[in-house]
Amino acid sequence: MANDTLEGNRHRGVPRQGASPHTLIDAIQGTLADFLAAQIGSLDSIDPALGRFARTARDLVHAGGKRLRPVFAYWGWRGSAGPDAPVEPVLPAFAALELMHTFALIHDDVMDESDTRRGRPTAHRIFAGQHENDGSIGDPQRFGSSAAILIGDLCLVWADQLLARSEAPPTVRACYDRMRVEAIAGQYLDILGENQPGAWSVDRALLVARHKTASYTVQRPLQLGLALTGAAQSETEQAYGSYGLAVGEAFQLRDDLLGVYGDPAITGKPAGDDLRTGKPTALLMLARKLATPAQRAELTLDPAGAVNPADGSGGPTDARTEGGFTQAQIERRAGIIAETGAPARLEAMIQERVADGVAALAQAPIHEEARAALIELAVRVTHRPA
Amino acid sequence: MANDTLEGNRHRGVPRQGASPHTLIDAIQGTLADFLAAQIGSLDSIDPALGRFARTARDLVHAGGKRLRPVFAYWGWRGSAGPDAPVEPVLPAFAALELMHTFALIHDDVMDESDTRRGRPTAHRIFAGQHENDGSIGDPQRFGSSAAILIGDLCLVWADQLLARSEAPPTVRACYDRMRVEAIAGQYLDILGENQPGAWSVDRALLVARHKTASYTVQRPLQLGLALTGAAQSETEQAYGSYGLAVGEAFQLRDDLLGVYGDPAITGKPAGDDLRTGKPTALLMLARKLATPAQRAELTLDPAGAVNPADGSGGPTDARTEGGFTQAQIERRAGIIAETGAPARLEAMIQERVADGVAALAQAPIHEEARAALIELAVRVTHRPA
Repeated sequence: MANDTLEGNRHRGVPRQGASPHTLIDAIQGTLADFLAAQIGSLDSIDPALGRFARTARDLVHAGGKRLRPVFAYWGWRGSAGPDAPVEPVLPAFAALELMHTFALIHDDVMDESDTRRGRPTAHRIFAGQHENDGSIGDPQRFGSSAAILIGDLCLVWADQLLARSEAPPTVRACYDRMRVEAIAGQYLDILGENQPGAWSVDRALLVARHKTASYTVQRPLQLGLALTGAAQSETEQAYGSYGLAVGEAFQLRDDLLGVYGDPAITGKPAGDDLRTGKPTALLMLARKLATPAQRAELTLDPAGAVNPADGSGGPTDARTEGGFTQAQIERRAGIIAETGAPARLEAMIQERVADGVAALAQAPIHEEARAALIELAVRVTHRPA
Repeated sequence: MANDTLEGNRHRGVPRQGASPHTLIDAIQGTLADFLAAQIGSLDSIDPALGRFARTARDLVHAGGKRLRPVFAYWGWRGSAGPDAPVEPVLPAFAALELMHTFALIHDDVMDESDTRRGRPTAHRIFAGQHENDGSIGDPQRFGSSAAILIGDLCLVWADQLLARSEAPPTVRACYDRMRVEAIAGQYLDILGENQPGAWSVDRALLVARHKTASYTVQRPLQLGLALTGAAQSETEQAYGSYGLAVGEAFQLRDDLLGVYGDPAITGKPAGDDLRTGKPTALLMLARKLATPAQRAELTLDPAGAVNPADGSGGPTDARTEGGFTQAQIERRAGIIAETGAPARLEAMIQERVADGVAALAQAPIHEEARAALIELAVRVTHRPA
């Protein structure tokens, strides 16, 4: 186990490397690597094809990311457990959040038909490629989607297995289940919004942000960390709840801005990706609200309407249309959105939420180093370049 | 709770209605109904669209089926707990198996692009229909698949939540996790086989049957029931393991036969459904093995090769072909398979396995009524019309 490496000396207390200590990230990676190696071995022994399947899952887990959910869970736990509690017993629970995140990303990418994630091929693209190289019959895309659905399912089950390795009071599992239901519900609203952009609003976009992002990125991980201590601390739970919702929403609002104005070289996604499909983000909904009638008419075009303006379907969206905007149309839409003032308003909303999140922590009975780390994280995750 | 209705008087002991007592099925339904009603209420309060989403899930759960997994878990539990143990505390765990099954069916149907299940529209077809009726934009099929992936995910999480409501020793969750991983691994091998029929064999088809069907239909439910008693009974666990694999494999072999020779009016699936896509079932693999060279050449045709025999691709399968056999071709293939003697051999394999399963129970230290019920079930589930 890589656990020994965590914090060098487990009695030294909170790592002195800022809010996302390398030693913590390394320990999470080590926990994941050990767990995944065991699962791969066990599936390999059933059939080599299953070993390959599981290794593909492992590579997807290792390819990511900022490990934000384990980091928030760590500080939620540390804030209550204090600087001297050994982290080893709770590492599997933190790592479980990362596997749960991998599940969510893989299924999201299938639904969005995304080709890349963090600049690399998505799960269903990888499996489609394997299918092509294997000389299989049938449609590689369909095989890729099916295999990706299954590998997502497997990551969700694996996450559960890892969670069970931390001796956890029942409140941990209750929190974890709430988080999973909220994430799935949020994702459903997200795809519903993409299919019913006319029925969407700023409020509904924020509802999606709360469930799809805030709950499972910040709020529940923090509360799960707290629950791992076994202490009934309703004051801290509430503070984490308020902080988590505020900072998590701000995180999503930043995501909205990056989805339109982010640098593709840094985000790993095409420029204006969110505008391609007319995804009703809070940014787009706010822009529509602030727009002049002429601007609004242009923003409510759906991709098919825009592609075929001759058919007069510029206003309300038609049922059963498909396609996406061209790059020139995307740039035009990004410009209109900027003109409405929506991006500036979104920046202000992010600031308000960060301030609210920090304020929620002010009186919480948590250890000072955790408070400092969470304040740093509130700012950092909402002002990131990707 | 409907629990009160179970067995009329909980001290009366094992219900006298045979191996699948109506009172048990009713109690499972009641547990599911109560649980789902609460989840629907909670999601409804977030957004009415989520309430509708959850009600669709509920209807899918209630539409099924024989409740075989809860029934096996019940008898696995009863065999060790004895006739006087009250069933109420373990009902949620039994019901959880049914939700887990709903998850598996929904995702399987997405992967297989099946339009019907038990004679009704599949989840993704229902959601595609909602999309069409809502006047949404975008592709109804794609929305349907996405929503079905999510509703499957939700059922998997709900199953976990229900399981947590039975006070269960850690061995229960370990058994449950093993079952879930095996079911996913089996399904992966299943879709792999469909895409690599040339690389398939009787042995590999039986490996799929063991993991995809035997594990999660019979073996693990029985062992989960045993684990719920909290007793460490390695002899019973082993007997359930042997019985479960044997009867579970026989169950799948019956499925193979029904998939080719079943009555569509009873199975709810089109005649010869398994032959349409050339799915490499144990039946087809065995037929290929027993076939004359001329028969084998015809059976190894893939659908695309058969549809375009003019291109000379009759022998080895070509990569990236798609389609399905016509009804006349399906009937012709069903006839060739029968001529090879494979169906009769499969019937014999089913008998052998039922006999093995029954023999495995003979010396197990379980209560007599459970033994009798499991013997009855072994015969019944392997000689069903649908």
